[in-house]
Amino acid sequence: MAKEQLIIFDTTLRDGEQSPGASMTREEKLRIARQLEKMHVDIIEAGFPAASNGDFEAVRSVAEAIKDSRIAALCRTSDQDISRALEALKPARAGRIHTFIATSPLHMEKKLRMAPEDVIIAAKNAVRFARNGIDDVEFSCEDAGRSEMDFLCRIVETVIKEGATTINIPDTVGYNVPRQYADRICQLRERVPNSDKVIWSVHCHNDLGLAVANSLAAVIAGARQVECTINGLGERAGNAALEEVVMAVRTRQDIFPCDTRIDATHIVPASKLVSSVTGFPVQPNKAIVGANAFAHESGIHQDGVLKHRETYEIMRAEDVGWNTNKLVLGKHSGRTAFRARLKELGIEVDSEQVLNTAFTRFKELADKKHEIFDEDLHALMSEDVVTPEDEYYKLVASAFHSETGETPHAMITLSAGGAEHRAEAQGSGPVDAAFKAIESVARSDADLQLYSVNAITTGTDAQGEVTVRLAKGSRIVNGLGADTDIIVASARAYINALNKLRSVAERLNPQL
Amino acid sequence: MAKEQLIIFDTTLRDGEQSPGASMTREEKLRIARQLEKMHVDIIEAGFPAASNGDFEAVRSVAEAIKDSRIAALCRTSDQDISRALEALKPARAGRIHTFIATSPLHMEKKLRMAPEDVIIAAKNAVRFARNGIDDVEFSCEDAGRSEMDFLCRIVETVIKEGATTINIPDTVGYNVPRQYADRICQLRERVPNSDKVIWSVHCHNDLGLAVANSLAAVIAGARQVECTINGLGERAGNAALEEVVMAVRTRQDIFPCDTRIDATHIVPASKLVSSVTGFPVQPNKAIVGANAFAHESGIHQDGVLKHRETYEIMRAEDVGWNTNKLVLGKHSGRTAFRARLKELGIEVDSEQVLNTAFTRFKELADKKHEIFDEDLHALMSEDVVTPEDEYYKLVASAFHSETGETPHAMITLSAGGAEHRAEAQGSGPVDAAFKAIESVARSDADLQLYSVNAITTGTDAQGEVTVRLAKGSRIVNGLGADTDIIVASARAYINALNKLRSVAERLNPQL
Repeated sequence: MAKEQLIIFDTTLRDGEQSPGASMTREEKLRIARQLEKMHVDIIEAGFPAASNGDFEAVRSVAEAIKDSRIAALCRTSDQDISRALEALKPARAGRIHTFIATSPLHMEKKLRMAPEDVIIAAKNAVRFARNGIDDVEFSCEDAGRSEMDFLCRIVETVIKEGATTINIPDTVGYNVPRQYADRICQLRERVPNSDKVIWSVHCHNDLGLAVANSLAAVIAGARQVECTINGLGERAGNAALEEVVMAVRTRQDIFPCDTRIDATHIVPASKLVSSVTGFPVQPNKAIVGANAFAHESGIHQDGVLKHRETYEIMRAEDVGWNTNKLVLGKHSGRTAFRARLKELGIEVDSEQVLNTAFTRFKELADKKHEIFDEDLHALMSEDVVTPEDEYYKLVASAFHSETGETPHAMITLSAGGAEHRAEAQGSGPVDAAFKAIESVARSDADLQLYSVNAITTGTDAQGEVTVRLAKGSRIVNGLGADTDIIVASARAYINALNKLRSVAERLNPQL
Repeated sequence: MAKEQLIIFDTTLRDGEQSPGASMTREEKLRIARQLEKMHVDIIEAGFPAASNGDFEAVRSVAEAIKDSRIAALCRTSDQDISRALEALKPARAGRIHTFIATSPLHMEKKLRMAPEDVIIAAKNAVRFARNGIDDVEFSCEDAGRSEMDFLCRIVETVIKEGATTINIPDTVGYNVPRQYADRICQLRERVPNSDKVIWSVHCHNDLGLAVANSLAAVIAGARQVECTINGLGERAGNAALEEVVMAVRTRQDIFPCDTRIDATHIVPASKLVSSVTGFPVQPNKAIVGANAFAHESGIHQDGVLKHRETYEIMRAEDVGWNTNKLVLGKHSGRTAFRARLKELGIEVDSEQVLNTAFTRFKELADKKHEIFDEDLHALMSEDVVTPEDEYYKLVASAFHSETGETPHAMITLSAGGAEHRAEAQGSGPVDAAFKAIESVARSDADLQLYSVNAITTGTDAQGEVTVRLAKGSRIVNGLGADTDIIVASARAYINALNKLRSVAERLNPQL
């Protein structure tokens, strides 16, 4: 018997991208969208078009590029927001308007400053307006996890009458526990007229570590759409992790009355891509996608205790895309092979100039590093190479020296708005010296909040991928840089962050 | 009305330490144990004394040092294991024998190769033997999550008759979902005679991302002990995270019929300590202890939307120990202040020689870095400084150079078994060159599996803490090194890993 479908709604590009420091360029969003499409995500929430022109363009680009997944655009209940979202979705083969308004007493009073009756009217008008432009309309009750049941029932009944096709019940602040959250879904399905005509959706935050459990409890209670993100990315402690939701449902088909369409073998590559684009590391003990998720401490194996794999493993590593690391290119690979592989990875190169820059970098890397993996290409293309014309600061050349008993020293040649500057500095280490040399030119006055490096692949000649988080006033950006030389990678990451600080515009970040 | 107590049983030092690469020295275990005691953890599982002499000594040291928490030692059902554990626990003010045997059909048949009746006899004899030596005996049914209910009831009834005081129902492979797992606890409590005379305990693994949710569902079903680890450390995807269990129960006192004794303000320092000792980073979107857990994307603040903190936050950052970073020492601090601060951090310095080495390192660091934080001291003391006599390889001096257009170069002076070697190498970057120079002396033939760096504190002059994971045959070790010079820190971490590879002995790692 065919099971019911559980719809996977990925919001890595919207809620995930709102994490402090996780903002993505249009090109990065496209690359992730293509990976999501490849893994058969049903719905990709591409952004919030009213937030800024950049967000609008990103949603439009994703809508143009993706054919097999439905594209959702978020909007508040205003006609202006919805019109803008409809415009961004125009190129989509299948689109969805996702409109939301807060429904909890606290949010209505303190944030919206609206009377409950006015909130219902706003929701009603928004869904009606959206349905005039598109068939597929999702309505979300922000902070539904702390809303009053009677009020929730009334507002949901109203929007269903107006033609909403999906009703989302977010636990915006991650306050719910599974049994009680599932109970909300049950009650809504029982009490709201025509509840069987819509898809019930959940969107859970992980503040108490319960986002996945709450989502799954709701699925058992009848929800048929889960909103989630790769690696559980998202505001604060993040959203429900797509990989955990999908694999729990798949592994426990004896309990769940539905299954997803996800091709799970793309999960680990998707996790690595999102980690690489955002600079957010995945901890080793993360379920499904952590480096240790399928690794046992060795003792037990040697001991001959482990006679059968299933004694300690309930999933197979290869089913979720581990060990699919392929040696794809080497130093003798040509431009055509290089371009073709980029395309397979979902990386579209817009101009010959960009391709040339990227290919030159690739050749330089192949000279230093024997084997070039997919992860190396992602890192190569994550940097400024993709949009060199936008970059104000560029690293031209560098030299570093450190020695026991001497103060570490860096020399940097930096291009700032086209003019070259040479700067030297000493520091507590060569990275500190490099950053000080760069700052002697840029004088950004930003604070370094986080610095981390991860080797992209195994082996001592691997590229280091550096993440630098800078804060200035209320702005936070993550800069990324990759190189086989960790000091060069650090300098690039710092410069990347400075460029982002210059270009990041104010924008709205809706909370769901 | 006073609520019932939920007992927090921390197994960071036993199950957490079994994570590939997370093995800890006796001194590191002591430091973590002191932090756990400070936060009022009820029971600290210190290790598995029968695993090796090192494990025995570690449990004994923890039992000697800790006064306010009960110390548990794990053992199989053999008299030998139990005697060894009793011996290790002798110095403890309060001790517990924790004995276990597998109860699932798969584990009994494939791993134990024992008939179910013989498993019951082994359990019965073990508990009887243990009760002759100590009053507090916990019995665990390994793989209880996949065991047959009738059999579970029978074996549990048997061990209760023999005097077991705590009954633990582990979901060893992380296969359970909350509702069904809670149902197991309910059934056991209903069906087993004298079930109200014992404490019911849960021990959940996170393979499907449900360890915390399963634990909490069991608490609602009547469990009164949760076994958990800091940062959710543990085999594969880890155990239930202590910080999430504690804060969920505390935040949702409207739902939970019990509360813990934990002083939550020690949670973030404990998380940082465990991350620093193991080299396992905490991802930014980790609940409670992730860097973003209490950070919002800035847009919403600027927008004036956030009128009240509680609109989006259900806990306060300061309640779990964020922002307690204290400037403790500077370059003018003396030996007495240094030693006193180490003591406050739970770091006992055994000999004057070790204190001298550590103090010299501290002075060197204070010369390079303006402000010395607690994290810096932990990093300083995590290295070989603590047990210099055990180290076969030591870094004597180093020099590194890299420059645009040239091949990076490293010179290393390495002491190997007391003899100094000078080596030079080129590499794809200065870190690669340093590792190659070291390998030209050590010739370990190990594979580099992971490499990562995290800045210990904010600011460009922060120390970088490097983790290097080496694999050789079936052994995996994590080496750690910290320095303001990232290349030096990398070299130290590599050398630390080489020393561990030389010293790590075979041992047993029981699975629960």
